[in-house]
Amino acid sequence: MSNTNLQTPKGFRDFLPEKMAIRNEVIKRLRSVFEKYGFSELQTPSLEYQEVLLGKYGKEAEKLMYLFEDPGKRKVGLRYDLTVPMARVASAYQDLPKPFKRYQIQPAWRAENTQKGRYREFFQCDVDTVGSKSPIADAEILAVISDCLSALGFSAYEIKVNSRAILFSIMDKAGIAKGQQLSVIQSIDKLSKKSKEEVISELKNKDVGEKQIDLVFSEIAKAKPDEYLAKVISLAEEMGAKKIVFDPTISRGLDYYTGPIFESVVEEPKIGSITGGGRYDGLLKTLGGPDLPAVGTTIGLDRVCDVIEKLGLWKDSVNPFVKVLVTVFSPDLLPLSLSVAGKLRSFNINTELFVSDETPLDKQLKYADKKNVPFVIILGPDEAKENLITLKNLKTKSQEKITLDEVIAKLK
Amino acid sequence: MSNTNLQTPKGFRDFLPEKMAIRNEVIKRLRSVFEKYGFSELQTPSLEYQEVLLGKYGKEAEKLMYLFEDPGKRKVGLRYDLTVPMARVASAYQDLPKPFKRYQIQPAWRAENTQKGRYREFFQCDVDTVGSKSPIADAEILAVISDCLSALGFSAYEIKVNSRAILFSIMDKAGIAKGQQLSVIQSIDKLSKKSKEEVISELKNKDVGEKQIDLVFSEIAKAKPDEYLAKVISLAEEMGAKKIVFDPTISRGLDYYTGPIFESVVEEPKIGSITGGGRYDGLLKTLGGPDLPAVGTTIGLDRVCDVIEKLGLWKDSVNPFVKVLVTVFSPDLLPLSLSVAGKLRSFNINTELFVSDETPLDKQLKYADKKNVPFVIILGPDEAKENLITLKNLKTKSQEKITLDEVIAKLK
Repeated sequence: MSNTNLQTPKGFRDFLPEKMAIRNEVIKRLRSVFEKYGFSELQTPSLEYQEVLLGKYGKEAEKLMYLFEDPGKRKVGLRYDLTVPMARVASAYQDLPKPFKRYQIQPAWRAENTQKGRYREFFQCDVDTVGSKSPIADAEILAVISDCLSALGFSAYEIKVNSRAILFSIMDKAGIAKGQQLSVIQSIDKLSKKSKEEVISELKNKDVGEKQIDLVFSEIAKAKPDEYLAKVISLAEEMGAKKIVFDPTISRGLDYYTGPIFESVVEEPKIGSITGGGRYDGLLKTLGGPDLPAVGTTIGLDRVCDVIEKLGLWKDSVNPFVKVLVTVFSPDLLPLSLSVAGKLRSFNINTELFVSDETPLDKQLKYADKKNVPFVIILGPDEAKENLITLKNLKTKSQEKITLDEVIAKLK
Repeated sequence: MSNTNLQTPKGFRDFLPEKMAIRNEVIKRLRSVFEKYGFSELQTPSLEYQEVLLGKYGKEAEKLMYLFEDPGKRKVGLRYDLTVPMARVASAYQDLPKPFKRYQIQPAWRAENTQKGRYREFFQCDVDTVGSKSPIADAEILAVISDCLSALGFSAYEIKVNSRAILFSIMDKAGIAKGQQLSVIQSIDKLSKKSKEEVISELKNKDVGEKQIDLVFSEIAKAKPDEYLAKVISLAEEMGAKKIVFDPTISRGLDYYTGPIFESVVEEPKIGSITGGGRYDGLLKTLGGPDLPAVGTTIGLDRVCDVIEKLGLWKDSVNPFVKVLVTVFSPDLLPLSLSVAGKLRSFNINTELFVSDETPLDKQLKYADKKNVPFVIILGPDEAKENLITLKNLKTKSQEKITLDEVIAKLK
């Protein structure tokens, strides 16, 4: 059988160890923030019944779903997002303590057009509070976002906030007809990516009059947070959230948000928004779940990981592989290598023992180099005699003959 | 729309926060051991092309696969195990440094008969070394298993080892015909679960003569590890592996193992084997991958988690939820609660703030109780005046009025 048949499916990705090290570290940092605020984790099955999935997202979305049959001929499909499963859980386990504060980090599947560089399996990371109408809940989501961005090492970020009511009030004041308001709001939302001129020309193409366009922009300039949003912002700041900015132009596919909307962007690198969310008090019921208010955010996990990897952020703090390779000089010196490797592991130093006692030392060093292992230990006849260890730094190419205690101190 | 339509698909499970806390802790402990030995993580897509999946496991297995079509009409299916994806990765990324030491913790899907209590989506946790023929690699897998079982808190366990060659040599010496050897080996493997009498009667039903049965048992009694296995055991013990026991009766669905076989059991609780593995030098090539030797083990993650949960192990060490709930006495005292919650979080204490300032205190306490939060903080007018905090222990029902520093010291 030829090996060339073995392909990664189109639109899907393998995560090799270097990618995984970053993903795991990102997830670890996010989890730690979520749990610090009292959110706990939920995981749901990859499959849902089609009656749970269909009729919730619209026909276009359904074209992207992976739908098939269970052996019992029940119609099932792969999860399209994490919100429908949460609605199902909130419905199925009615005795869950409310507010139900959950986070969920799992893949979802969409048969997207791969030419747009989209992946058909991607991780979602959602954190939501279900069952509270209080602005404290909204504020807490903002505080969580701010803490997450800090924990990821981003310093130049903005958390933009707005609300559905403010957007429609701007439209009303500018005299935009009800039927045209959503379309105008969608154009205005592009101000973060496009120039004002481009947006104006788009509005003109939508047959919005010049005078009304002027009015829209002057209303935007005058807009202020409403009472609820102002409360949310001040509470979030009291909780320690940083860089919250009122931005009356953001709208985030308004369809299901009913109150505040949140979106965060980092200045550097330029990757667009990395979180998006808001309050969606009617959605769970629409999805077939209980009639509970809810507020939350999604964090773009794949996007965050890709950027950290591409820009080589964290390069020095996250070592995807091991700290040190203990080489094996010869079969008779294998016990010495085993003993040193065991000692290092007992100090929680990630230690790889070269798994052969018949491989020339230079090949073992090349292996360490290829794996980007920072340190190598050599234990030959001289080291055995002197009861010392040769520790080689593969970056600086320097090496020294020192005691085990000194090695441990250097590697810890 | 009625909520009763929202069901968890048959054969699948939701993991609510209490289950997730245990799962996450198990995975964290296993990962830490794997990485201490220099294994790094791999994740592969949930879907594979059918040409990768089919023809590898036999017709019976294929009946259990979820097979369907990609939008581009390419035939795909959900992953059946983690070995085929690893073979594909080893083939697709030929420049991976060898030995390739990877671990992988991801779900696999099988449309099993749910009446047997089996799940259709289950997590596999595999750790393997690809590209080494040395007994050091086998020994390291045993050391990893031993460290994992210790890290999980199991103390009374056994790691049984055997090898394919020893089993067939017993069969040869007992004069079992070649065509009958696999069947006899399968019966013998049941000795860990069934009595000797039951196994003998099963062998008789398979038309094995009484004299031959006696011979099989006397050969088992005489059996000793062969040279390779003896080396593996002594190396593993040098690496610190504990409770390795030679057991010439275990066979683990021999089909693809080519050398040593490993299986581990814990005495308490009685859950059967929790790890299984061995050396499989020919398998990757058979699966369409490169011709590389390999050795590894699977750890029964779902089984381990279920047992820890059911027996209430770790009850005191793993808190699925938060350490403390900071209640909100009234809207005017909300800032005080915000400030105390923020301080506790800055000391990495998982702290939930009650997300409402309009809920009576007794309802907030009931919520904490329902969520099994161990401590509650009350900040009323008296506490505000005296600059003290009432800390209530919900287990002992005792409470005390103390300073913030004292609270932090107690909760850390």
